[in-house]
Amino acid sequence: MAPQRRSRTRTFRKARPSPGSRPGTLAPPEGSAPPQIHLYAYAPDGVHERDVLDVEELAHFVEPELPTWIDVRGLGDERVLRRIGEIFSLHPLALEDAVNVPGRAKSELYPRHHLVIARMPIVDDGGRLDVPQVAFFIGRRHLLSFQERSFGFFDPVRQRLCEGTGLIRTAGPDYLAYALLDTLVDRYYPIVEGLVHDLEDLEEDAVGASPDPGILERIHENRRRLVVVRRVARPQREAVRELAYDESPFVSPEVRTFLRDTHDHISQVVELADSCHEMSVGLIEIYLSGIGQRTGEIIKVLTLMTSIFIPLSFIAGVYGMNFEHMPELHGRLGYPMVLALMGAVAGGLLLYFRRRGWIGRGRRR
Amino acid sequence: MAPQRRSRTRTFRKARPSPGSRPGTLAPPEGSAPPQIHLYAYAPDGVHERDVLDVEELAHFVEPELPTWIDVRGLGDERVLRRIGEIFSLHPLALEDAVNVPGRAKSELYPRHHLVIARMPIVDDGGRLDVPQVAFFIGRRHLLSFQERSFGFFDPVRQRLCEGTGLIRTAGPDYLAYALLDTLVDRYYPIVEGLVHDLEDLEEDAVGASPDPGILERIHENRRRLVVVRRVARPQREAVRELAYDESPFVSPEVRTFLRDTHDHISQVVELADSCHEMSVGLIEIYLSGIGQRTGEIIKVLTLMTSIFIPLSFIAGVYGMNFEHMPELHGRLGYPMVLALMGAVAGGLLLYFRRRGWIGRGRRR
Amino acid sequence: MAPQRRSRTRTFRKARPSPGSRPGTLAPPEGSAPPQIHLYAYAPDGVHERDVLDVEELAHFVEPELPTWIDVRGLGDERVLRRIGEIFSLHPLALEDAVNVPGRAKSELYPRHHLVIARMPIVDDGGRLDVPQVAFFIGRRHLLSFQERSFGFFDPVRQRLCEGTGLIRTAGPDYLAYALLDTLVDRYYPIVEGLVHDLEDLEEDAVGASPDPGILERIHENRRRLVVVRRVARPQREAVRELAYDESPFVSPEVRTFLRDTHDHISQVVELADSCHEMSVGLIEIYLSGIGQRTGEIIKVLTLMTSIFIPLSFIAGVYGMNFEHMPELHGRLGYPMVLALMGAVAGGLLLYFRRRGWIGRGRRR
Amino acid sequence: MAPQRRSRTRTFRKARPSPGSRPGTLAPPEGSAPPQIHLYAYAPDGVHERDVLDVEELAHFVEPELPTWIDVRGLGDERVLRRIGEIFSLHPLALEDAVNVPGRAKSELYPRHHLVIARMPIVDDGGRLDVPQVAFFIGRRHLLSFQERSFGFFDPVRQRLCEGTGLIRTAGPDYLAYALLDTLVDRYYPIVEGLVHDLEDLEEDAVGASPDPGILERIHENRRRLVVVRRVARPQREAVRELAYDESPFVSPEVRTFLRDTHDHISQVVELADSCHEMSVGLIEIYLSGIGQRTGEIIKVLTLMTSIFIPLSFIAGVYGMNFEHMPELHGRLGYPMVLALMGAVAGGLLLYFRRRGWIGRGRRR
Amino acid sequence: MAPQRRSRTRTFRKARPSPGSRPGTLAPPEGSAPPQIHLYAYAPDGVHERDVLDVEELAHFVEPELPTWIDVRGLGDERVLRRIGEIFSLHPLALEDAVNVPGRAKSELYPRHHLVIARMPIVDDGGRLDVPQVAFFIGRRHLLSFQERSFGFFDPVRQRLCEGTGLIRTAGPDYLAYALLDTLVDRYYPIVEGLVHDLEDLEEDAVGASPDPGILERIHENRRRLVVVRRVARPQREAVRELAYDESPFVSPEVRTFLRDTHDHISQVVELADSCHEMSVGLIEIYLSGIGQRTGEIIKVLTLMTSIFIPLSFIAGVYGMNFEHMPELHGRLGYPMVLALMGAVAGGLLLYFRRRGWIGRGRRR
Repeated sequence: MAPQRRSRTRTFRKARPSPGSRPGTLAPPEGSAPPQIHLYAYAPDGVHERDVLDVEELAHFVEPELPTWIDVRGLGDERVLRRIGEIFSLHPLALEDAVNVPGRAKSELYPRHHLVIARMPIVDDGGRLDVPQVAFFIGRRHLLSFQERSFGFFDPVRQRLCEGTGLIRTAGPDYLAYALLDTLVDRYYPIVEGLVHDLEDLEEDAVGASPDPGILERIHENRRRLVVVRRVARPQREAVRELAYDESPFVSPEVRTFLRDTHDHISQVVELADSCHEMSVGLIEIYLSGIGQRTGEIIKVLTLMTSIFIPLSFIAGVYGMNFEHMPELHGRLGYPMVLALMGAVAGGLLLYFRRRGWIGRGRRR
Repeated sequence: MAPQRRSRTRTFRKARPSPGSRPGTLAPPEGSAPPQIHLYAYAPDGVHERDVLDVEELAHFVEPELPTWIDVRGLGDERVLRRIGEIFSLHPLALEDAVNVPGRAKSELYPRHHLVIARMPIVDDGGRLDVPQVAFFIGRRHLLSFQERSFGFFDPVRQRLCEGTGLIRTAGPDYLAYALLDTLVDRYYPIVEGLVHDLEDLEEDAVGASPDPGILERIHENRRRLVVVRRVARPQREAVRELAYDESPFVSPEVRTFLRDTHDHISQVVELADSCHEMSVGLIEIYLSGIGQRTGEIIKVLTLMTSIFIPLSFIAGVYGMNFEHMPELHGRLGYPMVLALMGAVAGGLLLYFRRRGWIGRGRRR
Repeated sequence: MAPQRRSRTRTFRKARPSPGSRPGTLAPPEGSAPPQIHLYAYAPDGVHERDVLDVEELAHFVEPELPTWIDVRGLGDERVLRRIGEIFSLHPLALEDAVNVPGRAKSELYPRHHLVIARMPIVDDGGRLDVPQVAFFIGRRHLLSFQERSFGFFDPVRQRLCEGTGLIRTAGPDYLAYALLDTLVDRYYPIVEGLVHDLEDLEEDAVGASPDPGILERIHENRRRLVVVRRVARPQREAVRELAYDESPFVSPEVRTFLRDTHDHISQVVELADSCHEMSVGLIEIYLSGIGQRTGEIIKVLTLMTSIFIPLSFIAGVYGMNFEHMPELHGRLGYPMVLALMGAVAGGLLLYFRRRGWIGRGRRR
Repeated sequence: MAPQRRSRTRTFRKARPSPGSRPGTLAPPEGSAPPQIHLYAYAPDGVHERDVLDVEELAHFVEPELPTWIDVRGLGDERVLRRIGEIFSLHPLALEDAVNVPGRAKSELYPRHHLVIARMPIVDDGGRLDVPQVAFFIGRRHLLSFQERSFGFFDPVRQRLCEGTGLIRTAGPDYLAYALLDTLVDRYYPIVEGLVHDLEDLEEDAVGASPDPGILERIHENRRRLVVVRRVARPQREAVRELAYDESPFVSPEVRTFLRDTHDHISQVVELADSCHEMSVGLIEIYLSGIGQRTGEIIKVLTLMTSIFIPLSFIAGVYGMNFEHMPELHGRLGYPMVLALMGAVAGGLLLYFRRRGWIGRGRRR
Repeated sequence: MAPQRRSRTRTFRKARPSPGSRPGTLAPPEGSAPPQIHLYAYAPDGVHERDVLDVEELAHFVEPELPTWIDVRGLGDERVLRRIGEIFSLHPLALEDAVNVPGRAKSELYPRHHLVIARMPIVDDGGRLDVPQVAFFIGRRHLLSFQERSFGFFDPVRQRLCEGTGLIRTAGPDYLAYALLDTLVDRYYPIVEGLVHDLEDLEEDAVGASPDPGILERIHENRRRLVVVRRVARPQREAVRELAYDESPFVSPEVRTFLRDTHDHISQVVELADSCHEMSVGLIEIYLSGIGQRTGEIIKVLTLMTSIFIPLSFIAGVYGMNFEHMPELHGRLGYPMVLALMGAVAGGLLLYFRRRGWIGRGRRR
């Protein structure tokens, strides 16, 4: 059963170089595809889009005429990644952060670019929760983005870029980075709302009549996902806050205004997740109480049945003894009187239980 | 049963554009009515009130002669809302925050106005807890307010405005915003006090004699509402704090003094809700203990009855056996001696249980 | 039962004007007596004390020659209170805070006076916990105090004032305010210590031999009071901290040194209450464990008795059957051999239970 | 039983003047011995040590030639204490803090001296946990220390002073105060380590085979002590932090370097105590689980025995009935067939329980 | 059993001088080997490595020509350690911190060097969790490191130094200190990931069908390790944060950039450990619920069996009585009618239990 459950939420596993490696050592995740590089140079009146097959071509885009977005998908070739780093003068540690996934969400200013690491939860085809990472390097004239593989996160932004709606083609790469980041943060909503809805379904089932043996696993799976989401969402909020409120030469004040909105969204997500956590804690307690209550009910029935019939059986047993000299056995009235005695005992016990509130009254309250 | 319970507390649901949409995309809540615009221009000596049918009329009130309050109810027509935004030069993100409900309570300064988002809990006719949102744009000479639909929150303030009591007609739109915000924050009191009273009723029932099967659901429903109230009240407190303590060109120092009072109120609400939470946690524990205790009592009765009668029944069983050679069966004293033996066994067991404190003494303590 | 329990701790109830009222609307608590005004003008060499029957007389004491303390008891006449506010130029919100009890403890600087709201717990004659409020307005030459009704809190300070011990007659109204505030804070000690002692008594009873059905109610009542005390004590600490550490034109640095001592006291109270909370949480857990343990013991006895006698009874039952052809019944040795079999079964089971640690060994450990 | 348990941990009890007393009112703890004053004047080349019998002699040591340590043990004579306060110009509140034990650990700067209140836990001869207090007044040329009674805390420092090892005779009274304070903080280690070891022993016993009825009391006593230690250790850490990191005219920067080390120690103690708390919370949960698990095991045995034998007994009962016309009774095969039926029923039930995992398989897993 | 379990996680034990000792008193851990000193002088073009047999040789390396790393392994000779302290002018307290292990992780600036204490968890050969300590003194031209014994932590860095890869030979001792510290922090990952994986295995087993008696011990052991890791990781994070973000004359801004990366790593570890804690708390609750649920199931079976057969046995018992006058016994139909009665009773009870949801329906839901 173990592998099946483990497959639902992907356990934390970090691709990292062995301890003591040189800083800047790249350890791309296993099985990552070779990098595909897409390039978008844009101006208010149009977008020039192409695939870059030879990494050396990128040298023309370090100080490009038009604002340029270089989107790298796949981290499977260390040589190419390292070459990109050299071309754009990326700090070795920054490049390491982009490649050795997953890291922590963060916002860090380097001399030649502003690094932003973002993580967002997705549920893959098999129903597993994963939290891939995207890295942005915001430069003055270019934006670099790195993703482990193509998740389609950027498609709506790419479309806006192609259609030229809004500010996206007139503003610089910082605005484009904002647009992409905002898209990623929006990914949190359906996940967290899904957890809320699961919790509500669980509540129905947990408070309900009979305990479903599978409910515990479902509660636990829900909590597990919540723990993962909260762990990644909090540093994400902090990273967006820094980007939105701290000065940076690569992010204009206008874009910071937009980022404050993104900060609001991620804050709302974190608060919702925190509420979920509170409800989840409450749910287990409620469920425990429910179990205790139902077990109590069952034991009450057991006690009633046993307590009433055991004395009666004992009386029957007494008169089933084979002693020769048992005067009661010979009278005409022996049998009816014993039946009456049994009735009296049963009635007395019923009355006693009723007075303790175990029968009738308890339910009527 | 699920839909019925879900209907009691409205689950978090945010009207939001699809991920990756252009910032400023408006996504008014489904089913919202078309906006109705009411306009109040006021001076110390009177109020000029009217309905605005054509949104273009509002262009006269951007820099109005008299302080003016424009109250927009209903968010069901994106074109009208967008036009209002253009007329008053509202920042696209600010307008988005006002329309894409529910958002987080916040206070944010924009170049041309101060945006305040407020949320307050209400219980609707069906007993459901909802937390609608109101947005204010405080300008120098005008105040804009947006609500999803008309909840009647503003009626007492409107009346004060019409009657001219207090400062309301002599002060500017910032004071009017304060008056409205204060009214909204006052809405928290009855909700939180209701939760306190429910908790107290639950305490009576939970500690009481027999466990009511419905009590768990009631405890859970209470906690659920508490979670919702706490989630919205905390950002609300923060928003009021910022408005009351931070400098803003749209809020005068005198009005900030008043807002500090509002901050006090919302702080009191948050503290009360936090106390509720503590009591609620305690309540479940108490309830669990109570269940355990009652079950223990029942099991004690079961054990006493069983432990006493089972050995007696066994003795009776022995002398009910049909062996031909059972010398005890034939003597005159066999029967009374066996009865005496049974009495002795029962007495011995009773004494033992009494010494363990299971009968009599335990209750007298 | 409900009203009886509710009467023990006074539920939060705030006298407040209806939502949307004009700020500064006074809503004195229901049933409050009409204000009685006592006036003390003091100098190093004596105290001039009198009752003020007509509120207008107070106009002479706005800038009095001697430092003056005006003590208002009872909030039952809005007109008088409002007039006092006018005479001393009290800010409408400040007056509202003083009259609409209970509010939150706070320290707030206004242009003409420093407002301090203090709350302290008392146990009234009926054993109920109440947390009344006292408001101080510290002016340059006068001190105003407002209380809902006379609780006798101020008697020791009044006596010190009359006897002239210490600095009280030589220092200004700020020192007098400190003396009164310190007296109020001292009221927390006996309450919190009482809760500590109750908790300790509860511990004795909870860990003890047999569960007292009333213990749960007592634990719950204790926790309830603790929740109330913590809710009011924390803002109180904050208010004293602000008064002691922040600059104020109405509080001299010398008096701030004294207030730091008061801050120490209230901090100690809060820490003690927090410890209480921790112990209280632990207590329920201990109690739950104790119930579980006792139930386990009882079930063990039940199981032992049942498990041993049920097979024996079965054997007896077999030989009580009335089949004509049961060879065992006819031999001379049938009866003793069955008795021996029964003994062997019982002995074997006892041995088994002993090896599982259910008999004997478990206790000897 | 109550008085016996209460004696183990000394309940919080504060010697304090009645509410409303004049600030600076001394309330030495009941039963404290009269003060004994020891005086040490020291120079690099020697120590002059003597007992001071008449408090007036101290007047020579306010501005002494040599650095001087005045050690006051016993707080039982208010007049003497007050006289010391006058001689050294101690602030009345500072003297009150030193005498009205126990207070909170604190560090407070007064014009003429720096007051440090320290508290450290000790276990007295009867095994009780107590947290006495020591007060230091660090002046420019003298150090005053006050203790309720002599606990021998200072002996090692006194010895170092007499032997002249290290800096102790060459540095000023601030260094001596550091040395004494460090000694006091070191007292926390054995107490907290003792609690850790007790917890570990409890873990052995709690997870073990059979529940020891005394274990709950031991867990609770451990937690109780932990609560006390945490309550006093946290303000102690804060006080040391202030002394080590804030400027004070009475503490030189060199000595502050040493105090940072003391701060490290008390921080380590607090962290260890916090870990203890976490483990202690876990322990109760583990213990509860263990009880539940054991009870479940016992109930399983009960259920197996009962469920198997009750149907068998019923069958035997049927053929023990005395009806005249029961055809089965007369055949030769009646008896063996019934025995076979009983075996089949028993076997079927065993198989059923085995398939549910209640027998055999469960243990082999 | 006790010693065996205790051996798994090493209890906190601090080698410390007796309370009141002179500050700077060295108390090396018992059984520590005598110090072995390795020296590495390095330049971009090579490394000069040697063992130092006589501590006095180190005097040449206080202001060495080449950057030099002096690695001291073993703390078993106080004289040698004290001599090293004299040669390099180490502050006595700093030396004490390095030798009296284990201390708290910290970063502290002294006039002649920057002291860094690092602690990292390891699992030794016997499966025990230990948290040894390493101390660094970062000087301008030299780096001193002290470890209790050789753990092989530094081997990869030593290799990089010998091979000259990266910056390690061109940068100063601060970079070398960073490289070593980063290696140590990397040690946290496998430990915390191991705890995560153990937790996941425990989840499988805890939610599964039958409670494994050993699971509680495993949960507890896991939690215990988590407590230890969290206690040491938090001060470690703080120490790295101070080193990475605060100014220090011994750490260049370039190296601080690298240290920020290390700070990220340790932050990720702390967050992962916090998540573990949350999951661990949840696990016990889930496990408790599971036990309660299983016990409830078992009790249900017991109740069903008992409740159905006890009345039947009673009926059989009645007709097993030996009264002479029992009319039912003589009719031809007596026996079949009683059997029919028994069938009816059993059927009625089954129906009743089915309607309460105890049979059939409950499982089908």
